[in-house]
Formats: sequence, structure tokens, C-alpha cells
Amino acid sequence: MSMSFKELMKVLGLGAVAFVLGVEWLNWLKRRLRDSHGPLKEVLFFPSPQACVEHLFIHHKHFPCACPLPHGVETSFSRLLVHLLSARMSLDLCVFSFSHMELSRAILLLHKRGVVVRVVTDRDYMTITGSQIGALRKAGICVRHEMSSAVHMHHKFALVDGRKLITGSLNWTLTAVQSNKENVMVTEEPELVGPYQKEFQKLWEANDPANHKPQCTNGQLNIKTCKDR
Amino acid sequence: MSMSFKELMKVLGLGAVAFVLGVEWLNWLKRRLRDSHGPLKEVLFFPSPQACVEHLFIHHKHFPCACPLPHGVETSFSRLLVHLLSARMSLDLCVFSFSHMELSRAILLLHKRGVVVRVVTDRDYMTITGSQIGALRKAGICVRHEMSSAVHMHHKFALVDGRKLITGSLNWTLTAVQSNKENVMVTEEPELVGPYQKEFQKLWEANDPANHKPQCTNGQLNIKTCKDR
Repeated sequence: MSMSFKELMKVLGLGAVAFVLGVEWLNWLKRRLRDSHGPLKEVLFFPSPQACVEHLFIHHKHFPCACPLPHGVETSFSRLLVHLLSARMSLDLCVFSFSHMELSRAILLLHKRGVVVRVVTDRDYMTITGSQIGALRKAGICVRHEMSSAVHMHHKFALVDGRKLITGSLNWTLTAVQSNKENVMVTEEPELVGPYQKEFQKLWEANDPANHKPQCTNGQLNIKTCKDR
Repeated sequence: MSMSFKELMKVLGLGAVAFVLGVEWLNWLKRRLRDSHGPLKEVLFFPSPQACVEHLFIHHKHFPCACPLPHGVETSFSRLLVHLLSARMSLDLCVFSFSHMELSRAILLLHKRGVVVRVVTDRDYMTITGSQIGALRKAGICVRHEMSSAVHMHHKFALVDGRKLITGSLNWTLTAVQSNKENVMVTEEPELVGPYQKEFQKLWEANDPANHKPQCTNGQLNIKTCKDR
């Protein structure tokens, strides 16, 4: 059974198209199966070893930090900072106790960069010695606190750009970071990020000072330029 | 171009085999793509509304609970209990503060069922009023505490059968469950479960009383039949 040249060309042409489509499709399949591994999931444990984190705040090659801490070491704390400083649009923070200076510095830097920062914190713990809540407010960052004095706002989570969740047992204090046994999970898994984002919004709205006038007329709630969003 | 009966049968046979293989393969592909959605991920927020959880402890159709709490209502707390009580082999618990009576009842029930329960807790908080740690020890459950008095074991996570992680901000106290703003995440994601399991093992070994003799000779560490594993 012989084949004409025209027929041969037709078969070869179809074969080539089928081959290219097949390869493309296999690549797509490979990508899908690889993606089934899923989005970012990182677990950090504390206490974190101490190391210099200056390079995360100031990018200046020709002016290395002269502090006595180890340099060029990645720690749980430096990873936490990296994730927080990755915010480009927004940072929603829900934290019981916040007195850590470097974490405060990171939040202030994000605010200075134009990232929309919103903070919900505990009523009692925001006024303890060393609390950074006052510093955030003075810089114009919107802070709301749990309105009821009978319950604690005990969450410790942050949402970066509405798509990265940082959550765990870690309060934002020096003791928690440097001494305690603590855990922090960082994930971009939408099924986990979604509920936390919804919870943040719920707490943000429930603790709107406008709805709790008797407790909010002392002028301490909105200092400088806090524009509630 | 005519085809003999034999040839027709051959083509039909091959076609049928190709069809069956194709359908099977498409099903496999569908399963893989659906699985890319991933393993269990559940988020629980607290405070939890109060509801009767008696049915989770006693399966007895003809003897319904007569308590005044709402019945047949699923809450964050009942979901937490369901996940804990799903343990068949082991429960590794790492919790800062543990005074919740129903959670204690659940752990004791698991122990009674033969589930291997291991608990790591904080040194200071295990002796506070209402702590359930003593009750667990009396029942023969192995409890270890953070050996250093300078640091807190601040984790609040549990591992069910080494494959389900329960973690969050929630301490195992009545205030946390019924009053505070808290979060708990339940997941079977191996990339998250793995590091926590490793951390548990690390803490379990680091706080082995055998390695800390001066603090462990008061006879309070191993009551009844605690067999350290």
C-alpha cells in the first residue's frame, strides 16, 4: 500500500501538530501536578537565636552594620521580619501584646512606605510598660482595641497584602521572641487566609470607636492623621 | 476500501480498550486535580457559644441529655472536641495553661481508650488553681513540663495520631473558650504537621526528667503508671 507525497505530507503535518500539542499539554499537566504541592507554608519556632537584622531595614552594601551580633545568619525572627516587610499594600495586625522594638520599627517602616496598616489589640495590654501601641498611634497608624474590658483580644496574627497569613502563639514581645517556646506559621493557603481575613474585618468593625462613643471621647483613640478605613 | 469481519473486530476491540483506558486515566487525572485542593484545613474562632457536648462523650440514643444548654448545635468548641476525640493511636499535647474541665475529660477518655497521650506544659502554670495537669498525672498520663523556670512553654498545639495538627492562640481554659477572641486551626497538611511533630519530640526529649535529676526527685513527676515513651 503506497502513499502519495501529498498524503505523506498530510500525515507528517498532522503528526507534528499532535506532537507539539501533546508536549504542551504534558507541560501543563506537570505544572498542575507540581502546583498541587500548594502555596507557601513555613513554620517558625522560637526562641530565636539573636542575629543582626539591620540589613532588612537598610539596604546599603557599602555601610555594613558594626553591631556585635552575628551577621548573615537567618533566624526564625529574621524570617518573621522578612515576611512582614514583604507587605506592599496592606498589613492587618491582630495582636494581644506588642512591645517588641524591632517589630514596631518594621510596622512604622511599612507605614512610612505607604502600606495601609491596621492594628487591633487588647484593651488592657496596650497600656502596659513598653507597649509600642502608643508609638504606632503617634505615627498615625490606626489602632483599635477590644472594647470590652471583660474579655481579652488574644489573637496573634497578621495578614500581609490580604494574602499571606502569619499566625501562632507568639506575642510581639522580646520575651516571646528571645526566651519562650513559641510557634509561628506563615501560609498563603487561601482556605486558611480567608477565614482570618474575615475575622479581622469583623473585629475591626466591632471595635470601631464610632460605635462605642462613651469610651472614645477622651481623644486618645485617634492621634495625628489616623484615617480609619 | 472494505474491511473483513476479523479486521472490524480487531479495530472495535482496540477501540474499546483505548476507551476504557482513556476513561480510567481521565478519572485519575480528575482525582489528582481535585486533591490539589489539598488535605483538611479548618479554622475555628472563639469565644464559642455554649452548647451541650455530652453526646460527644456518651453515645446513647435512648438517654438524651437533660442539661439546660442548647442541644444539637455545632460550635467552635464542639468542633475542637470532635477533632481531639478522633484520636485512635496517639495524642501529643503541648499547652501553656490547661484548666478546662471538658477538655480534661476528653483527654482522660482518650487515655482510658488506650490512646497514648503525652503532655508538655509550662512549669509555672501547671500548678495554678484549677489546673488539670494533676488530674491527668493521677490518671497515669505522662506529663512533662518546661524545665527552665526562666522561660515559658507558650505553645498551644496538639497532634492527633501524628497526622492532624490543632494549633492557635487558644489556651485550654474556660476563659479562653467562652470569653476571649481566639483562633484555632486544624489541618492535616503534612508540610505543617511535620515541623510541629518534630518540635513536640524535641521538647519531649529536652524535658525528660531523667536528664534533669535535681528537679525530679520529689516524686511528683511520675504518679501511678506513667510509662514514658
